[in-house]
Amino acid sequence: MQLARVIGEVVATRKDENLTGLALLLVQPLNADRQPAGRPLVAVDAVGAGRGEYVFFVRGKEASFPYYPAEPPVDAGIVGIVDHWDVG
Amino acid sequence: MQLARVIGEVVATRKDENLTGLALLLVQPLNADRQPAGRPLVAVDAVGAGRGEYVFFVRGKEASFPYYPAEPPVDAGIVGIVDHWDVG
Amino acid sequence: MQLARVIGEVVATRKDENLTGLALLLVQPLNADRQPAGRPLVAVDAVGAGRGEYVFFVRGKEASFPYYPAEPPVDAGIVGIVDHWDVG
Amino acid sequence: MQLARVIGEVVATRKDENLTGLALLLVQPLNADRQPAGRPLVAVDAVGAGRGEYVFFVRGKEASFPYYPAEPPVDAGIVGIVDHWDVG
Amino acid sequence: MQLARVIGEVVATRKDENLTGLALLLVQPLNADRQPAGRPLVAVDAVGAGRGEYVFFVRGKEASFPYYPAEPPVDAGIVGIVDHWDVG
Repeated sequence: MQLARVIGEVVATRKDENLTGLALLLVQPLNADRQPAGRPLVAVDAVGAGRGEYVFFVRGKEASFPYYPAEPPVDAGIVGIVDHWDVG
Repeated sequence: MQLARVIGEVVATRKDENLTGLALLLVQPLNADRQPAGRPLVAVDAVGAGRGEYVFFVRGKEASFPYYPAEPPVDAGIVGIVDHWDVG
Repeated sequence: MQLARVIGEVVATRKDENLTGLALLLVQPLNADRQPAGRPLVAVDAVGAGRGEYVFFVRGKEASFPYYPAEPPVDAGIVGIVDHWDVG
Repeated sequence: MQLARVIGEVVATRKDENLTGLALLLVQPLNADRQPAGRPLVAVDAVGAGRGEYVFFVRGKEASFPYYPAEPPVDAGIVGIVDHWDVG
Repeated sequence: MQLARVIGEVVATRKDENLTGLALLLVQPLNADRQPAGRPLVAVDAVGAGRGEYVFFVRGKEASFPYYPAEPPVDAGIVGIVDHWDVG
């Protein structure tokens, strides 16, 4: 999974019907020093993350697991809100 | 999912028969500032996106979900047209 | 999917038996300006592409779909030959 | 799989319920010279790896195999602790 | 699939039990000019590749296909030994 910060939200009226009602958050992947690393992604949110929070997200079909038996067409999903991480 | 802009279209007469009838759009991934980031991809389109529109697409087998029970051999598919996104 | 050009062929006598009889082509991914982008890959070919042709290929398990019910261990497969693409 | 070193731990109280009880380790991918290569990831641990140890991890749904029949939403998992590797 | 050269071996006593007995080789991805491209990976070997040999490997769950019905948690596997490739 990847450390990231929630930096925004995406509003999309026209979308696949299986995405209806899912929060579409913009997340910025981070390195271990909390610096941005790579480009932002759009992720669904299964844990109630808010803007500015540090999270980790999962990529691939696994992102849809929290919505089972629904199978929304997603490839990135927030699965945890980070209290803290420590390194060294 | 990845933010992107529809920049063109791919025409292919000879292709896997399960791709017949599917729009093959050229999409340019974007960063949060709407600047190009990385190289363009060919994506199928399940939501009727037009050239110049801002969209988000999903990667992997999930791209074929909107066509179920058909299983076209695709790995990128537009699943939403972005009204706007906000950051900060 | 990714735009690419067929630049060569790979000959391998010793290989997984499920690859027997499949063409193994070397493809160079391209950006929208037909310039090389990233390193070449080995892809199977389900559409009869020849050297020098512009194609698009799919990544992941989807690359094995055209061979169903066989399941060759492949992760990249050419699924279309490009007539042309246009951008702008 | 990717060579890596365990460099820390992630603490997350609010997370997908299927992650409960799983160790969430921060791993730094390495090149063959044991130098960091790319950004750290959060990986689950199926083999009891400790901080500072050299490991290899698997990406994708395969990371959840050790937990079967549970299917935690993970995309990176440590599956081996490296005694040593040799090159040349 | 990716062209690579077998550059070493990884020894791991403590590992997922489904990896027992599988050769864990260190492979260096190559570009078409046989120059290293990107960082080495740990791959299982289904075709008896030896150190120094040129091979191609598959990524993702496909890497476990040669071991079916066993499902080792692997994401990279050598599926062919290259006799030669030609470009141009």
